[in-house]
Amino acid sequence: MTYNLAEKTWPMIENYLKIKNSILLSVGSTEQHGPTGIIGIDYLSSWEIAKKVGEETGTLVAPPLCFGMAQHHMAFPGTMSLTPVTFIQVICELIQSLYRHGFRDFTVVNGHGGNIPSLNAAFSQILGNDEECRFRLVNWWHLPEVQSYENKHFGDKNGFHATCGEISVTQYTHPEAYKEIPKLKFEATTSEHPWPLSPIQFRKTFPDGRMGSDPSLATAAHGEEIFKIAVAAIAQKLRNNTKG
Amino acid sequence: MTYNLAEKTWPMIENYLKIKNSILLSVGSTEQHGPTGIIGIDYLSSWEIAKKVGEETGTLVAPPLCFGMAQHHMAFPGTMSLTPVTFIQVICELIQSLYRHGFRDFTVVNGHGGNIPSLNAAFSQILGNDEECRFRLVNWWHLPEVQSYENKHFGDKNGFHATCGEISVTQYTHPEAYKEIPKLKFEATTSEHPWPLSPIQFRKTFPDGRMGSDPSLATAAHGEEIFKIAVAAIAQKLRNNTKG
Amino acid sequence: MTYNLAEKTWPMIENYLKIKNSILLSVGSTEQHGPTGIIGIDYLSSWEIAKKVGEETGTLVAPPLCFGMAQHHMAFPGTMSLTPVTFIQVICELIQSLYRHGFRDFTVVNGHGGNIPSLNAAFSQILGNDEECRFRLVNWWHLPEVQSYENKHFGDKNGFHATCGEISVTQYTHPEAYKEIPKLKFEATTSEHPWPLSPIQFRKTFPDGRMGSDPSLATAAHGEEIFKIAVAAIAQKLRNNTKG
Amino acid sequence: MTYNLAEKTWPMIENYLKIKNSILLSVGSTEQHGPTGIIGIDYLSSWEIAKKVGEETGTLVAPPLCFGMAQHHMAFPGTMSLTPVTFIQVICELIQSLYRHGFRDFTVVNGHGGNIPSLNAAFSQILGNDEECRFRLVNWWHLPEVQSYENKHFGDKNGFHATCGEISVTQYTHPEAYKEIPKLKFEATTSEHPWPLSPIQFRKTFPDGRMGSDPSLATAAHGEEIFKIAVAAIAQKLRNNTKG
Amino acid sequence: MTYNLAEKTWPMIENYLKIKNSILLSVGSTEQHGPTGIIGIDYLSSWEIAKKVGEETGTLVAPPLCFGMAQHHMAFPGTMSLTPVTFIQVICELIQSLYRHGFRDFTVVNGHGGNIPSLNAAFSQILGNDEECRFRLVNWWHLPEVQSYENKHFGDKNGFHATCGEISVTQYTHPEAYKEIPKLKFEATTSEHPWPLSPIQFRKTFPDGRMGSDPSLATAAHGEEIFKIAVAAIAQKLRNNTKG
Amino acid sequence: MTYNLAEKTWPMIENYLKIKNSILLSVGSTEQHGPTGIIGIDYLSSWEIAKKVGEETGTLVAPPLCFGMAQHHMAFPGTMSLTPVTFIQVICELIQSLYRHGFRDFTVVNGHGGNIPSLNAAFSQILGNDEECRFRLVNWWHLPEVQSYENKHFGDKNGFHATCGEISVTQYTHPEAYKEIPKLKFEATTSEHPWPLSPIQFRKTFPDGRMGSDPSLATAAHGEEIFKIAVAAIAQKLRNNTKG
Repeated sequence: MTYNLAEKTWPMIENYLKIKNSILLSVGSTEQHGPTGIIGIDYLSSWEIAKKVGEETGTLVAPPLCFGMAQHHMAFPGTMSLTPVTFIQVICELIQSLYRHGFRDFTVVNGHGGNIPSLNAAFSQILGNDEECRFRLVNWWHLPEVQSYENKHFGDKNGFHATCGEISVTQYTHPEAYKEIPKLKFEATTSEHPWPLSPIQFRKTFPDGRMGSDPSLATAAHGEEIFKIAVAAIAQKLRNNTKG
Repeated sequence: MTYNLAEKTWPMIENYLKIKNSILLSVGSTEQHGPTGIIGIDYLSSWEIAKKVGEETGTLVAPPLCFGMAQHHMAFPGTMSLTPVTFIQVICELIQSLYRHGFRDFTVVNGHGGNIPSLNAAFSQILGNDEECRFRLVNWWHLPEVQSYENKHFGDKNGFHATCGEISVTQYTHPEAYKEIPKLKFEATTSEHPWPLSPIQFRKTFPDGRMGSDPSLATAAHGEEIFKIAVAAIAQKLRNNTKG
Repeated sequence: MTYNLAEKTWPMIENYLKIKNSILLSVGSTEQHGPTGIIGIDYLSSWEIAKKVGEETGTLVAPPLCFGMAQHHMAFPGTMSLTPVTFIQVICELIQSLYRHGFRDFTVVNGHGGNIPSLNAAFSQILGNDEECRFRLVNWWHLPEVQSYENKHFGDKNGFHATCGEISVTQYTHPEAYKEIPKLKFEATTSEHPWPLSPIQFRKTFPDGRMGSDPSLATAAHGEEIFKIAVAAIAQKLRNNTKG
Repeated sequence: MTYNLAEKTWPMIENYLKIKNSILLSVGSTEQHGPTGIIGIDYLSSWEIAKKVGEETGTLVAPPLCFGMAQHHMAFPGTMSLTPVTFIQVICELIQSLYRHGFRDFTVVNGHGGNIPSLNAAFSQILGNDEECRFRLVNWWHLPEVQSYENKHFGDKNGFHATCGEISVTQYTHPEAYKEIPKLKFEATTSEHPWPLSPIQFRKTFPDGRMGSDPSLATAAHGEEIFKIAVAAIAQKLRNNTKG
Repeated sequence: MTYNLAEKTWPMIENYLKIKNSILLSVGSTEQHGPTGIIGIDYLSSWEIAKKVGEETGTLVAPPLCFGMAQHHMAFPGTMSLTPVTFIQVICELIQSLYRHGFRDFTVVNGHGGNIPSLNAAFSQILGNDEECRFRLVNWWHLPEVQSYENKHFGDKNGFHATCGEISVTQYTHPEAYKEIPKLKFEATTSEHPWPLSPIQFRKTFPDGRMGSDPSLATAAHGEEIFKIAVAAIAQKLRNNTKG
Repeated sequence: MTYNLAEKTWPMIENYLKIKNSILLSVGSTEQHGPTGIIGIDYLSSWEIAKKVGEETGTLVAPPLCFGMAQHHMAFPGTMSLTPVTFIQVICELIQSLYRHGFRDFTVVNGHGGNIPSLNAAFSQILGNDEECRFRLVNWWHLPEVQSYENKHFGDKNGFHATCGEISVTQYTHPEAYKEIPKLKFEATTSEHPWPLSPIQFRKTFPDGRMGSDPSLATAAHGEEIFKIAVAAIAQKLRNNTKG
């Protein structure tokens, strides 16, 4: 059974809230992922993982926020970014909407590193008003179980952006999209660089958009494994009610 | 072939921009739609319609904005709303991201009446800076072709919210979601009422969330017709390059 | 007797609030109105109409807001515009001031089309806080009684900006201003154009500032009729307490 | 001849700007002025004075901003206030509109003490962007010529709010308004008090809204004198191009 | 004993609040002070004075806000400025933090003229919410006792910026800093000039950053006197609980 | 020689900028640090360390920002906090001030964990405008050299807030402050807890303000070591121009 909030009626939510006050949100980004990764990787991966965790744990999942803080990717066409301050405000208003209805336990499945500071800032902004809720931020690619798999199979060719891991996951979840994309060979990219970077600095440093990855190692089969590992790890957190 | 931006790589977008500078955005809302309509109707309908228009016309479609200005529905659980000012800011930043890459012709397929003022305000905010672009706002349920169909088949039982038309469309696009939802009989609701309303006023005036509709008339078959009519009408606008 | 709030003392307002909680606000714009229309048309017309409605119905009238959302006219000297977001904030703060004193029923007599989205956004912003008040937005030139008169006398030469109707009204209310303005003959302007436009696009499309009107048809005599029709129609709305 | 911007056409402004780049703005407030002073005193007095200065010096006058920073008067019904931050933003946007057209020399005739900090903050905000313009802030009741007259005729009974001077000016400019207002005798109010005050503190300290004034001394004849003195003094500043 | 909040533990503050609810804040600026004055004069002088007043009167002193509204000095390297709107927001949040703990009586020792409008705006913003507290703004160089000393010793060579007085105070409090700074002779600067100025206008008008002062008259001995006079005068205000 | 910007004149900065474009900023917080730690620890430690690094490397140091994002500590008296959004805006404006003068290489010495998300968001906000500068964020207590010392000497009694390390550093830099503070014995605090917390949740979870530390282990001697280690490590980063 789906736990997708968008596919429920309001009386179903009213009933759910009599029993549980937890909800999953997925937050992604719309940004370049190198010459062979699709632009929607961050929102699609976090959304698919969140939906599956919802089904496995019987937890509602809010619709995806497909846009995040991706300013450093703005020199690559197709990237769409919110400023940090706007992104923080959006997160606050979405969570405060749910808070009004009685939700108190929020697990954010995040698919993009650039969102992490703003998400944490938003949580502080909300809690600063003494709204008595709980946040669990899960950056799925940071899960130890996921990192362990990726280290084993991709080693230091996983990279930091347009990684083998995230491309694999969407090869598994969105195989159609990858049919149109040519296979390429990759050379190593700059390994030492300052951070953070402006859009222009980023494109100068990483001309094809990858950060240290060799995405030719990505496969749908790896993606399926990683997807399942991530879902299981997050579901476990929810069941055990452990720290985010 | 898909024209879903999220499923493309950045070099594909770079190539597209050599030929065309138009893009479709879909903007919805996450809000109650009465006891038998799903909460995601506005985002799902506009997103599905926009994707199909993209395919038919070879126009890129940005990922969906699933959240809009739904404050008046906030007394029904599951509704998630942005304030008008935040929603305006989000629209501005998303469009300005695309503008930076070279997009100049923006068609917004909107699924929610409450978004219309803020979308227009956002367009004015952007154009006020003399950014030389063009906006076409399509509220799909307002298309004359759609209204004509709905008038013929639902008459004044189509209503103003949780309408037969929009529920039909999602019965067609998301049949699984409706399997869990009970069939209900409906009585007529208040026909005369002030507007706009606060959340509490709204729920007092429309206790089950419908505004004048009899959603028991909705069917997937109607939805398929309406969907196709809306897609054809919007595609025609894009081909003829007519006013939004 | 005047019902102009500005010409009352606070104890008079305190007494009024013991009996009524309704108030009229007039919102205009300071913007070009073609080569023969005065820049203040939108604020002067809505202010004069609102004052007269106040007298006829015994309803207080707040001082005029002379500035609105007129960004698209900014390429013509003399135009003064607020951004949508600032305009929304101003409307919210003015209405919330009155709300604090006990006013609950707000009729906004608006003189400028460009204000409509922002006014609606402001009402939603206020009501989103569950402030239990009522808004009635009257765009005086949209009143069916006014449109009927204008259609009959000006037909399609009334146009969309610097219309015969609004120029007529101010010829009636501000005859002195028109003594200095030369009479001109006009040719038809572009009838098909995209919308919305940036300031530069607007001036390129409508070089003298008119949108499809032939203002040489405007007369003070027409203005007197239109003024009286608008006042009567709005007064009737207040008396009948009908929807805005 | 009037120099009221609102009563001009845009080509007239275009011509004016070929010769001069100066403009007058009037900024007031809508706030209680004790039991015998009208609520609009600040906007009406500054607006009437500015218009007359415009005529005397051939300088354009923008429409009045009728609302200012009057939060401390909010415990008296009829007061309408903007927050400082919104008021600053409004001033910035209005002046930047005029700046775009080529105005460079701005004289603000202000009618309300509470506006002074926010006006100065707005000027700094604008100039901080290196917009090369000039501001002259004239608080008409602070003009030495006005203070000298008021000291001579009202002494320490002029007070600090709802003063004899400002009530006199509007008795002169708006005699009709005062016909409905009863004559009252007044006792001295608190002479020592902290400042600033919250709305509630203000009403507790000054229960009838006056601050140390005896408004029974106000007359239209005094008002005429003060009005003429203020107009002459400001006109002189414009002619001599002296510091604001 | 120090009354420096930063050097206390929270239980000490909890105990203090059982007895007193007053606190001192010092607000400065980081901005150029001519060729022989140090950039930190405004924050260092107000901070040192505030700390000493704290000791003398047993009043807590919050950490210094070292940055203010110094936009007009931005054409001189080393100046750091907040915009008025941001500065207002910072003041509001810092005071509201203290208000939450129970502080109600706030004395702001200010070292920079450019901060005065924004500080007053901030106080109004806070009080507008009916937060029942009291503000006393002390611009130390405006104290009559200080002005009397400076007039006597520096006359019209004290100037308006990079004054003999403020340089003297920091020569006394920070003698080390002045060891590296060369002694210079100064000529008189422009005595008549418009105000306010943009950064570029300011530097053109006052090329070395002074406004009418002859800083060669400044000495640490004068500084010691002025420092003691200012401390005594402010301490007296706190003891007498007089108006700010 | 000091490299304290506040103790320089603007011509000295002008000269400095001919040779170098780097600057140090120190950002702290004013917040409770348990029953024996002083409230100013975060700003005092980062400020003292930054000044010393400035001297060792010949790099200018801007005045301290004494306030940060400390909302979770607001249930303890003495804490002063900015909201994340305001804090981000302050950081942006301070850095953009320096950027205008020609600074391009910014090292932020941060003393408070709660600031990290907002600092990163601010850097992204600035770089998003393609301002071509470089940021190096140094959270001094996170330096591997510091952590190694603290692990060795305090082990898991160092804790996460009001740590032995940070208290030690201020015992060394501000010995006077600690004379008034009683020595206390401490018991272990909660080791497992969710994060982030609201102010009330925080105080309930950590009633005396410590998070897992035993501050009785702190000594000025340890502080001196840690201070020197941190200074050396940061100076080394600046000399080697390594990543922040």
